[in-house]
Amino acid sequence: MNINDNYKKLNESYLFSTIAKRVNDFAFKNPNAEIIKLGIGDVTLPLCPAVIEALHNAVDEMSKKETFKGYGPEQGYDFLKTSIQNYYKDFNVSLDLNEIFISDGAKSDLGNILDLFDKNNTCLVPDPVYPVYVDTNTMAGRTIIYIDANEENDFLPLPNEEVKADLIYICSPNNPTGAVYNREQLRKWVDYALKNNAIILFDSAYESFISDDELPRSIYEIDGAKNCAIEFCSFSKMAGFTGTRCGYTIIPNELVFDNMSLNKMWLRRQTTKFNGVPYIVQKGAEAVFTSEGQKQIQKNLNYYKQNAKIISDTLDKLNIKYTGGKNSPYIWLKCPNDMTSWNFFDLLLTKIGVVGTPGAGFGKNGENWFRLTSFNTFEKTTEAMERFYNLFK
Amino acid sequence: MNINDNYKKLNESYLFSTIAKRVNDFAFKNPNAEIIKLGIGDVTLPLCPAVIEALHNAVDEMSKKETFKGYGPEQGYDFLKTSIQNYYKDFNVSLDLNEIFISDGAKSDLGNILDLFDKNNTCLVPDPVYPVYVDTNTMAGRTIIYIDANEENDFLPLPNEEVKADLIYICSPNNPTGAVYNREQLRKWVDYALKNNAIILFDSAYESFISDDELPRSIYEIDGAKNCAIEFCSFSKMAGFTGTRCGYTIIPNELVFDNMSLNKMWLRRQTTKFNGVPYIVQKGAEAVFTSEGQKQIQKNLNYYKQNAKIISDTLDKLNIKYTGGKNSPYIWLKCPNDMTSWNFFDLLLTKIGVVGTPGAGFGKNGENWFRLTSFNTFEKTTEAMERFYNLFK
Repeated sequence: MNINDNYKKLNESYLFSTIAKRVNDFAFKNPNAEIIKLGIGDVTLPLCPAVIEALHNAVDEMSKKETFKGYGPEQGYDFLKTSIQNYYKDFNVSLDLNEIFISDGAKSDLGNILDLFDKNNTCLVPDPVYPVYVDTNTMAGRTIIYIDANEENDFLPLPNEEVKADLIYICSPNNPTGAVYNREQLRKWVDYALKNNAIILFDSAYESFISDDELPRSIYEIDGAKNCAIEFCSFSKMAGFTGTRCGYTIIPNELVFDNMSLNKMWLRRQTTKFNGVPYIVQKGAEAVFTSEGQKQIQKNLNYYKQNAKIISDTLDKLNIKYTGGKNSPYIWLKCPNDMTSWNFFDLLLTKIGVVGTPGAGFGKNGENWFRLTSFNTFEKTTEAMERFYNLFK
Repeated sequence: MNINDNYKKLNESYLFSTIAKRVNDFAFKNPNAEIIKLGIGDVTLPLCPAVIEALHNAVDEMSKKETFKGYGPEQGYDFLKTSIQNYYKDFNVSLDLNEIFISDGAKSDLGNILDLFDKNNTCLVPDPVYPVYVDTNTMAGRTIIYIDANEENDFLPLPNEEVKADLIYICSPNNPTGAVYNREQLRKWVDYALKNNAIILFDSAYESFISDDELPRSIYEIDGAKNCAIEFCSFSKMAGFTGTRCGYTIIPNELVFDNMSLNKMWLRRQTTKFNGVPYIVQKGAEAVFTSEGQKQIQKNLNYYKQNAKIISDTLDKLNIKYTGGKNSPYIWLKCPNDMTSWNFFDLLLTKIGVVGTPGAGFGKNGENWFRLTSFNTFEKTTEAMERFYNLFK
């Protein structure tokens, strides 16, 4: 037996372990320091009452022979797919039920979708980037081309006609930069993909943080996208499902390459290698789309958005350049005084006890940049940004 | 973009759709016929009270900020891994916690584990077989060698030294045949794997149906297996989790090939392409291992085992040859009078209104054989087998 040698090419990321070590060292030497973590990438508010009620009801169903559910459809129950279909109508996007696949999260599907593509495809990934795009393709032995996301293009790179790629990763609102593509910019990517017979893998996990009506929440708001794009979304950040695990993937029926429907290929993949999301969880996810559920998750999203505003208002007052914050839970700021990401990290930690994430950890273009997140409490976010203001004013 | 061409080589299985069509046609023409389905491959009893209580409690935890759980460890929570570690002690198998990976089901992991192996590996699959082993390797473009499981070897094939394979699939108790390897037989497979530098992928999804203490419930009961085997198990049949989704995979630390630890490779795979099983579900699974939970799931297992006994007792009385039934929910019988699987299917359906699964649907060696399952009710199973007895007595 030979192993998959591509695993030897994977880089170990020491980003979060290095952060933890430096924070622990500081806390050990400064036992009275009140450290505030603005590096959190996970939600902190509990599931909303409508979801909790639906989960309890579904558990009760599983306790009785008459309502017990065994194997469900691998691609998800129609009740949840119908709710998602209706959700997309709000963006003027019309989907067939069979185009919607319920998943256990965007991360799983973003990795597993690669099963459908030839190993010799080239993929195009922005730098800085969510590391999973790079690692999953490295595992498969694919060639990766990076495209610069930087201050010059406001961290929203546009296609370069001279670069040819088969699979294009777009995350908007972006992790880690919080930058959001507008319609005209996404139009350019769709045109490029159509011209080059490429597929866009569109990660919209943070779409529910978009407040600006002018910004697209789905790539299918762009004409032609159904012929070149797969969209991945998640209940994780929308409704606090990071530990409850549910998402969805849209594969339009129009995506036919070499006489093979990607939608049918994915159905075959899922029925062979997946057994669906727990019934209980799908019932919880359905409740997100009820009017009560929508009100309740919006309240939570507003809480995080308020935190983002506290951070971005502080940066505005200090004339520090940043992206994100307005339509994203992430704020990506330029380190003052040309500091490196890690020097800035140490400065914030040691001077004001605030923890963030060094941008250099997300790729070479992240150097001199820094990520703050809006997932801590209102009180701690306010306190952290007061300290931040006083340090740089 | 080019698609993964291997998907073109997949065979469509029409087994269950053909069965459904023939049953529907019969029911339409015979509206008064009371059809009894003994082809069911899914559990029918609800989750046991201990699991239901744990699920409710976990849902409550998700409703409060203090106890809410976001992202968990991709490989599963220690509380559940510890329960599984203790469960294996009953088989005298000692596992490190890091060797246990919580999954959303054996099917997912049996497919995804193939990421770790070179595409040029050859895999050895018994015929008849659970179709997923074949399809997942076909998708990856691997060469598949079949080994005959048939009447001569009681559907328990042993290694042939002249056949070289890198990945060996063993399912025991077997789906579809219900046959169970004994220790001496598994010993031969372990020896073969060790000698040939091969990996055994051991599917033990039905181990909880084993009543005979002499039969191994884990491949690690065989010395040396930790150097050549990965074990996949599931709560699906053990505790009725087919719609609740939880399983586990054991990857021993001893499995090091080409200086790479398969355990560490899988951890890397899971942290990159998976986000763990829902916290709620893991709490439900933990309850399976409490003393209350064990009593309750044993009661359900005994119910199915009693059904299996009704079926096998009938076949004994009729002198019809079969495997399974005693340590398995499946009964695999030789069609009387040299009938083909499909002729026998039609005979049972039209003469006595009983539905089973034609063995030919699981591979060429399944021809002339037929699968019955023990997942219907006691009453219906009894009624079906009375009709069966009267037809063949």
